[in-house]
Amino acid sequence: MSGSSESNDAEVPTAASPVPSTRLTGRLPTTTPAEAAAIVPETATLLVSGFGGVGYPKLVPEAIAAGDQRELTVVSGGGVGDEIDRDLVESGDMVRRYPFVPNETVRDAVNAGAVAFHDRHISRLADEVRFGGLRAGTDGPTVAIVEAVAVGSDWLIPSTSVGHSPAYVETADHLIVEVNRAQPLELGRVHDIYLRQAPPHRGPIPLDDPLDTIGGPAIRFDPERLEAVVETDRPDDPYEFREAGDTERAIADNLCRFLQAELERNPLLAERVNLQFGVGSLGNALMGGLSDVDFGDREVSYVGEVVQDGLLDMLDGGQLSGASATSLALSADGQARLFDDVERYAADVILRPADISNAPALIDRFGVVGINSAVEVDLYGNVNATHIRGTRVVNGIGGGGDFARNSRLGIITLPSTAVDGDVSRIVPLTPHVDHTEHDASVVVTERGVADLRGRSPRERAEAVTAIADPAFREDLERYRQRAASSGGNTPHDLESAFDWTR
Amino acid sequence: MSGSSESNDAEVPTAASPVPSTRLTGRLPTTTPAEAAAIVPETATLLVSGFGGVGYPKLVPEAIAAGDQRELTVVSGGGVGDEIDRDLVESGDMVRRYPFVPNETVRDAVNAGAVAFHDRHISRLADEVRFGGLRAGTDGPTVAIVEAVAVGSDWLIPSTSVGHSPAYVETADHLIVEVNRAQPLELGRVHDIYLRQAPPHRGPIPLDDPLDTIGGPAIRFDPERLEAVVETDRPDDPYEFREAGDTERAIADNLCRFLQAELERNPLLAERVNLQFGVGSLGNALMGGLSDVDFGDREVSYVGEVVQDGLLDMLDGGQLSGASATSLALSADGQARLFDDVERYAADVILRPADISNAPALIDRFGVVGINSAVEVDLYGNVNATHIRGTRVVNGIGGGGDFARNSRLGIITLPSTAVDGDVSRIVPLTPHVDHTEHDASVVVTERGVADLRGRSPRERAEAVTAIADPAFREDLERYRQRAASSGGNTPHDLESAFDWTR
Repeated sequence: MSGSSESNDAEVPTAASPVPSTRLTGRLPTTTPAEAAAIVPETATLLVSGFGGVGYPKLVPEAIAAGDQRELTVVSGGGVGDEIDRDLVESGDMVRRYPFVPNETVRDAVNAGAVAFHDRHISRLADEVRFGGLRAGTDGPTVAIVEAVAVGSDWLIPSTSVGHSPAYVETADHLIVEVNRAQPLELGRVHDIYLRQAPPHRGPIPLDDPLDTIGGPAIRFDPERLEAVVETDRPDDPYEFREAGDTERAIADNLCRFLQAELERNPLLAERVNLQFGVGSLGNALMGGLSDVDFGDREVSYVGEVVQDGLLDMLDGGQLSGASATSLALSADGQARLFDDVERYAADVILRPADISNAPALIDRFGVVGINSAVEVDLYGNVNATHIRGTRVVNGIGGGGDFARNSRLGIITLPSTAVDGDVSRIVPLTPHVDHTEHDASVVVTERGVADLRGRSPRERAEAVTAIADPAFREDLERYRQRAASSGGNTPHDLESAFDWTR
Repeated sequence: MSGSSESNDAEVPTAASPVPSTRLTGRLPTTTPAEAAAIVPETATLLVSGFGGVGYPKLVPEAIAAGDQRELTVVSGGGVGDEIDRDLVESGDMVRRYPFVPNETVRDAVNAGAVAFHDRHISRLADEVRFGGLRAGTDGPTVAIVEAVAVGSDWLIPSTSVGHSPAYVETADHLIVEVNRAQPLELGRVHDIYLRQAPPHRGPIPLDDPLDTIGGPAIRFDPERLEAVVETDRPDDPYEFREAGDTERAIADNLCRFLQAELERNPLLAERVNLQFGVGSLGNALMGGLSDVDFGDREVSYVGEVVQDGLLDMLDGGQLSGASATSLALSADGQARLFDDVERYAADVILRPADISNAPALIDRFGVVGINSAVEVDLYGNVNATHIRGTRVVNGIGGGGDFARNSRLGIITLPSTAVDGDVSRIVPLTPHVDHTEHDASVVVTERGVADLRGRSPRERAEAVTAIADPAFREDLERYRQRAASSGGNTPHDLESAFDWTR
């Protein structure tokens, strides 16, 4: 590898000039994936870019998996591709994983106890990596592998997601950059990179409006740490969204009716509505369904984690003034649509570091209406968003906790049943809790809306039972009768609480 | 009642001149408790001052309880006295209560289902009251009853707590002020009142250091709404702290050892340590125990909810540069000690509105080390802070969730057993969850410290078992063996998970 060149600030892309003329600027340590992989020590923490299944490095993780046996803690922003969460698991190199496991292979390994996983709030992870807050498995050397659309001697421009890359690039002992020619250089226009100071003197995030910008397109780094640049043109392997079915459409209808009524009564939504939807097919379908809401003169923005296909429809339809997120978590079709017209979309879309997109302070400040999904909800409004039968993790909490807790209005949407109607998702007691009864305010199923705000546990149980599938309501009522004998603020019959689950 | 006078800004106490010369300034609608009580409609929401068992109105609630039958939703800042949480319950006037139930009478009524209660995060309540977020039972007229040390035609200075009074005074249709001559006028020196704008244009809270001030001593109001001023000299009936026993001292020792080690390794604690302790005897004992920690040159501040007696010791000992809180939740002795020397203590103590003292944004910004207690903790780090056997509420979540989630280091302290050692507080699965496995990072008992940061659920279970009482460790290990057969990221044997609880 060649040595790094001196920094030349004149060449660093800025908000005013966000698109460099070339992919590689200056003298860079370009090399092969195998040589880059050789930089990774036998025991190390890999800090990889990627969020929402896009913007992750591809060739170097693949080369690591193909190379010598290692013991790696792998930390991403959010969801990443098979080169990381399949190949590194199958090769036996991955022993620990943060903060999210949406891919099947890594999820199976985690559920088998073969890969250690602890589920972190997205908003917290950047600080935990920067300031040593993860502890387990992160004591060794750190190697950041970041996908970029362009790189210079001391800067890079991320590709289709920002995630926690600014924090990872700052923290890493060794930096490897994958420049991906399949990702448009014009993505420089969407990024607003801002790295917070360390507590206790970090000050507020200086963002007054969710569509303002406070940074520029480039992540800066110490040029000494840039040890390899690898080129590729392999595209992202993004999410595929399920087509919305009758149930999703009925949930969307109920949600829209609720939002319409809330617009009339809620003084905080009189002028501006800042909406967030969670990652996934239901979230995508709900975004698409929003065209049925009459927002009147209100300005409507998306203020969340991921730009999904449903958002592009709303942008094209003029219903949305803009979107602030950390990932372009589009389908392949959605990605093609955005890439064909990046400049136009870039005027309305901002990608931020995930500790900014998910910052509790900003979710509060902007009065976000947060809409997320769940595995199951119990009678008292506790939400299990991550674990089937309380034991098998599905994906991880992601940003759900950030938005459920800090939104002005935290809404949980889910079908009332699973497994073709055989299993109720409205249960007496969730065996795993991700959002407590203190957090989510409103639950929506295809059967109706349970507005839990301010209600006592007994009142909540009644409201939640009413949005269960009718086939399970009698059983839920019988549970409530048995529970009544326990007394207490939150009645339970713990002997039968898990009869449906176990 | 006489009409209110015109505002005269020259007379309003300010940060520069925080102590008015008289208790009552200008022409005020002074009256008797019974006449003030008559202002309260038959169905209404009472918004009362008080937090940490101090600073609550006394005579008017007592008069309401003695008067006509009413249906009242009662909302306080936090803990209040018997005139509210005993008398209004016994008289049958209280039908709903937010956000916290530390008094025995109201707690029993809530657990019997006679008073509806929903447990709210302290940080969220002011906004919920101001902007209609509580919904249930708050549609009718609102009456604020606020204890003050002094009042003018359009301002008041709170007494021993601020709590949510600024929000309540702003929201109320009718305002009643109790001026308490037993509370020193000099308390004007400790208050820093600041009311945030409404989302989505509220901007950040402009506080760069936890010991800065951004407001003044007075809560302002529309003079038209001030309908009664009642005078009293009845003192607060504050908490009594239990003397620390061997178990508390052992917990304090373990906590201090952990903090000492953390000071060495944690870069965020290199210069400044901002500590929070929860309300109660254990919190008070832990504060007292901190004198064993060698903080070196670091500046140490208290950044939390309540100033308890243990903090006065630290202030007197010069170990603490200052305290930011929302309540002087002192014992009677502690209150006497502070009142005897208000001016000196006021130089180091700041009382803020509870939505500022507990703001997630500030807890994050100041990198708080948050130390709170619990009813029980499970193998995976889920924390039940409020419900005995998952059903009977003890008090409420208070600010525990604000600090457990948003602290840089969220620590849960608890004795490993209850009921003279007969019941383990380390359990397989908590039947109620207030802080999820995603939140608290470290658990401390008298048996040791479980550092859960970044650990997988299986690893957490091992660490948590090690700090259980030895009499229960074998049973916990047997549970883990049974649970292992379920597989999954978070193994459980749901059939026996509550064998200890039910």
